Amino acid sequence: MIDKLMGKIQKTGAPIVVGLDPMLSYVPEQVQKKAFAEYGETLAGAAEAIWQFNKEIVDKTWDLVPAVKPQIAMYEQFGVEGLRAYEKTVKYCKKKGLVVIGDIKRGDIGSTSAAYAAGHLGRVQVGSKTYAPFDEDFATVNPYLGSDGVKPFIEVCKQEKKGLFILVKTSNPSSGEFQDQLVEGRPLYELVGEKVAQWGAEHMGESYSYIGAVVGATYPEMGRALRKIMPRSLILVPGYGAQGGKGKDLVHFFDKDGLGAIVNSSRGIIAAYKQEAYEKFGPENFGDASRAAVEAMIADIRSALG
Amino acid sequence: MIDKLMGKIQKTGAPIVVGLDPMLSYVPEQVQKKAFAEYGETLAGAAEAIWQFNKEIVDKTWDLVPAVKPQIAMYEQFGVEGLRAYEKTVKYCKKKGLVVIGDIKRGDIGSTSAAYAAGHLGRVQVGSKTYAPFDEDFATVNPYLGSDGVKPFIEVCKQEKKGLFILVKTSNPSSGEFQDQLVEGRPLYELVGEKVAQWGAEHMGESYSYIGAVVGATYPEMGRALRKIMPRSLILVPGYGAQGGKGKDLVHFFDKDGLGAIVNSSRGIIAAYKQEAYEKFGPENFGDASRAAVEAMIADIRSALG
Repeated sequence: MIDKLMGKIQKTGAPIVVGLDPMLSYVPEQVQKKAFAEYGETLAGAAEAIWQFNKEIVDKTWDLVPAVKPQIAMYEQFGVEGLRAYEKTVKYCKKKGLVVIGDIKRGDIGSTSAAYAAGHLGRVQVGSKTYAPFDEDFATVNPYLGSDGVKPFIEVCKQEKKGLFILVKTSNPSSGEFQDQLVEGRPLYELVGEKVAQWGAEHMGESYSYIGAVVGATYPEMGRALRKIMPRSLILVPGYGAQGGKGKDLVHFFDKDGLGAIVNSSRGIIAAYKQEAYEKFGPENFGDASRAAVEAMIADIRSALG
Repeated sequence: MIDKLMGKIQKTGAPIVVGLDPMLSYVPEQVQKKAFAEYGETLAGAAEAIWQFNKEIVDKTWDLVPAVKPQIAMYEQFGVEGLRAYEKTVKYCKKKGLVVIGDIKRGDIGSTSAAYAAGHLGRVQVGSKTYAPFDEDFATVNPYLGSDGVKPFIEVCKQEKKGLFILVKTSNPSSGEFQDQLVEGRPLYELVGEKVAQWGAEHMGESYSYIGAVVGATYPEMGRALRKIMPRSLILVPGYGAQGGKGKDLVHFFDKDGLGAIVNSSRGIIAAYKQEAYEKFGPENFGDASRAAVEAMIADIRSALG
């Protein structure tokens, strides 16, 4: 899957991920109304609204980008019905040829991580049958529990030819509270980065490892250091746009050949029609606004990479 | 909710949580067969099997214990159908008067944590209606992203009178890899413990805070230190039984009055019928075996607490 992702990045010339994190407040009124007319103002209605919203954005952007990253929390907040919209979104994006990164940030003790890994990236056995319940291509994983919480995910990736992005340095303001603490003179995130590099070296695709890392766009200097520490790991970079990261901050996350990182934007793309720059599209053409925002992001990143 | 939990611990005299972590391999054949006869060997069939398994265990143990802790991964591995069994389990346990601790270990950047918090402990708005999708009483939270990843959970707990258990020192063998790293001479988990103590002091129930901590039974000396660092926080102690923790190791997690901690056992209780000590019950009476295992655990912990 890492080879498919790298191939698609090169083919599109867009090291970009569309973050499908649909807050209900992003969904234009006409889409909400239609969903509520069919399912009522229920959790199923909310799920239908975010699914139709996603579908339109995917239909308008799938040919420009290699990958999408649905944030499962935005679906899970609507309970089981919301998770059904997540499942549908994953399936639809895969059908469109997109690589799907499930932003699930799971991580637990070994046997429990194995269950998450099976449900999201692998298969479960039910009697004589096997199923791949959520079936994302990649998943994000929280490393706080250490190697034995991560290894079951790696095992499943090995079997299924899928991949991971391990949280190393997150994009949020208080990420430094624990991640930046100095351990023998070096920040904890570097220690985590070294583990990722080690796991990564052992699990290689053609040129990059299928064990990648998450490093926030909001911390470009740390991105530079981590790029060196994890030479074979693709870096997934959240925090572009709405969270404050800009194209020129991103160069440090990339290798000299312009590869090695893939940048996520969520709100900046999916809620583009709400921004001044794209308001001319109007809520009825929100998908076209998203396409224009993707095109602008591609231009920004290409120009930063020179 | 912390006051309800503390009240129930005192009333039952059992600082014990039954971990509802149903692997399909724990579910006796007759229960699986019946579920598969109705739903086929499908994800819905697996979900029905674990739900019926849970129901029997809850029916046989609810009067002995204050709380249950379903581990969401064991449900999530069966996809949306599995999560429906999780939802049913939470609802059923609450109807039985049990306090439900959702072992979800979620944690993300602020706006995303807010979505998890709304979906699990709070409410979501859909048009003019509000819903409480999963509606657990407590949830476990991963602190790796720092304060702004935890605070949205605290906010929802304040509104809904619910509670949290923050991962401080987990029970698994490699938990030390990052959690034990020395920061200015002290392990990182103590730093996290101090944060928990601070959040805890600001969010008090009658005698204990509704911001508690997870500290593994497998690390009793660290439990002793953390008990002092977080004087107002209830400690949720996983790792008893199958993971190696014993009653006598647990005293350090408790206060002098025998309160301050609540010990979880999962496999040791729910799969008791598979152990030599309880095999006389046979798979057909697995619920009675679980009841006997709970009684033995209560006796073990009471004798350790003296």
